Amino acid sequence: MNNLVVGSIGLDTIEALESKVNEVVGGSATYFSNVVKFFGPVNLVGVVGDDFSDSHMRAFSDPAIDLKGLSKVNGKTFRWHGRYNDDLSEAESLATELNVFADFVPKIPTSYTKPKTLFLANIDPDLQLEVLSQVEVSGVVALDTMNYWIETKKDSLLKLLPKVDIFFINEGEAKQLSGEKNFLDICKKLASYGPETIVVKRGRAGVIMYREEKMFVAPSYPKCSPIDTTGAGDSFAGGVMGYLNKTENYSMKNYKEALLWGTVAASFAIEDFSVNAFQDLTYEKMLDRFDDLKEIIQF
Amino acid sequence: MNNLVVGSIGLDTIEALESKVNEVVGGSATYFSNVVKFFGPVNLVGVVGDDFSDSHMRAFSDPAIDLKGLSKVNGKTFRWHGRYNDDLSEAESLATELNVFADFVPKIPTSYTKPKTLFLANIDPDLQLEVLSQVEVSGVVALDTMNYWIETKKDSLLKLLPKVDIFFINEGEAKQLSGEKNFLDICKKLASYGPETIVVKRGRAGVIMYREEKMFVAPSYPKCSPIDTTGAGDSFAGGVMGYLNKTENYSMKNYKEALLWGTVAASFAIEDFSVNAFQDLTYEKMLDRFDDLKEIIQF
Repeated sequence: MNNLVVGSIGLDTIEALESKVNEVVGGSATYFSNVVKFFGPVNLVGVVGDDFSDSHMRAFSDPAIDLKGLSKVNGKTFRWHGRYNDDLSEAESLATELNVFADFVPKIPTSYTKPKTLFLANIDPDLQLEVLSQVEVSGVVALDTMNYWIETKKDSLLKLLPKVDIFFINEGEAKQLSGEKNFLDICKKLASYGPETIVVKRGRAGVIMYREEKMFVAPSYPKCSPIDTTGAGDSFAGGVMGYLNKTENYSMKNYKEALLWGTVAASFAIEDFSVNAFQDLTYEKMLDRFDDLKEIIQF
Repeated sequence: MNNLVVGSIGLDTIEALESKVNEVVGGSATYFSNVVKFFGPVNLVGVVGDDFSDSHMRAFSDPAIDLKGLSKVNGKTFRWHGRYNDDLSEAESLATELNVFADFVPKIPTSYTKPKTLFLANIDPDLQLEVLSQVEVSGVVALDTMNYWIETKKDSLLKLLPKVDIFFINEGEAKQLSGEKNFLDICKKLASYGPETIVVKRGRAGVIMYREEKMFVAPSYPKCSPIDTTGAGDSFAGGVMGYLNKTENYSMKNYKEALLWGTVAASFAIEDFSVNAFQDLTYEKMLDRFDDLKEIIQF
């Protein structure tokens, strides 16, 4: 009854503010699992190439991350090269090499097929549908996507959304998919596609949740010092799903708590490159920040 | 015992999204007074040229706005021409003509010299000091400034800040003046210059208040449909000061309420050009939005 994630693992070259890092471990499944590990076990399904070294594997060294679903195949690992603008709000993609990720067809190990919670990180919606056909989720299914799939595979996405409980989507994509401008209209439209819960990610402006016809807004954590925002969204999803998985409580109140946990996870992710921030982090340090955030937003 | 504002009145030419308006009434004092009028009387000190027509004067037609301090002098009114980016977060200044504003030396009418609250809108810090020397404020003094004064008159600004209770400043300027990056460090540094309350304005990311060594964050109102963000900051200040003036309660709890009123005022301001949104607005409509915002942020 674990938390299952299907997503990307890659090597990122990132230029942000005055720093540059070369081929550090990134990818949606990487960030997500490195957050969920603080809440409980996580089963990871993804693919890397034969150039993915032991030193790269250290990103997954926590025993809470189960790697039975991680395939290593002949070829090169997925690579991304991006450069951020001055306030880290947007990245320009300088190069994207799909490599072994191009032929990725997720096979869910038998022991993973009955998860409590499932995070379908951003991949081809047809593959996300394929994953859903292999599993029986007792709790919550969450989905992330991106502008490319909205443009090229909107039909598959719309077929997928009724099977999804939480739809994580960023602001620009939410506007693009809904065709609306006002967040209330955006959320209503996205909810009409099926998901019970819409979570619009707005970067430094925080997140908007729409659920049971009510809106809840949480700001980003204001006291962190961002140096690279790569993986913020997937870390955020990790905090939300990790907390829901651990508490098994799907009330509105608990969803709000989950959203704050996601915010806290994202705030750590962006304070270092790759998943470095999660290597020496403790649950206690996360809890301190969670309590601080609760106080900061207390009206 | 009124609310006094000293600031600019101008004619704005604005290009935003698909719209353009020519020479509509703008300026910090204009937006501010058009919000405060919902909370009580406001005394306005500013200057216009002899080209400021009866039709322009309609922006100040509410009897709650007292115009004894408004000088009409020979010459042209202050003009600004700006063009906004796609998400209305930044404006490029295409032209700024100070005109009669260049020689503006605020003279506070005798009946205005004992205000309960004073808003020193963004003008030359030396003039803001000059205003302070003419008045005796029983409640709260608030100040706004801009990057130009931080660069050219930092000494005057630093002389001014110990005399100020609330310092309204936008994110970029807060970073520039404090030399810090993390919002906690930024706020601490700005507070060390004197003001008891720091309010950092972050546009769509909402506002951060720092007071009594505590931080409070409020998001922007998510359900409005922005078309022009000119005047958002001064409208925000109007909501904060109008509410503080009306309630005469300077507790932390009441400051938080004031911040939400500011957020609501700004959310209306940006839904139309100039102060048009405030012409048919009622206090009841503002209260509805205030209650909605309270619910949206309720944890």
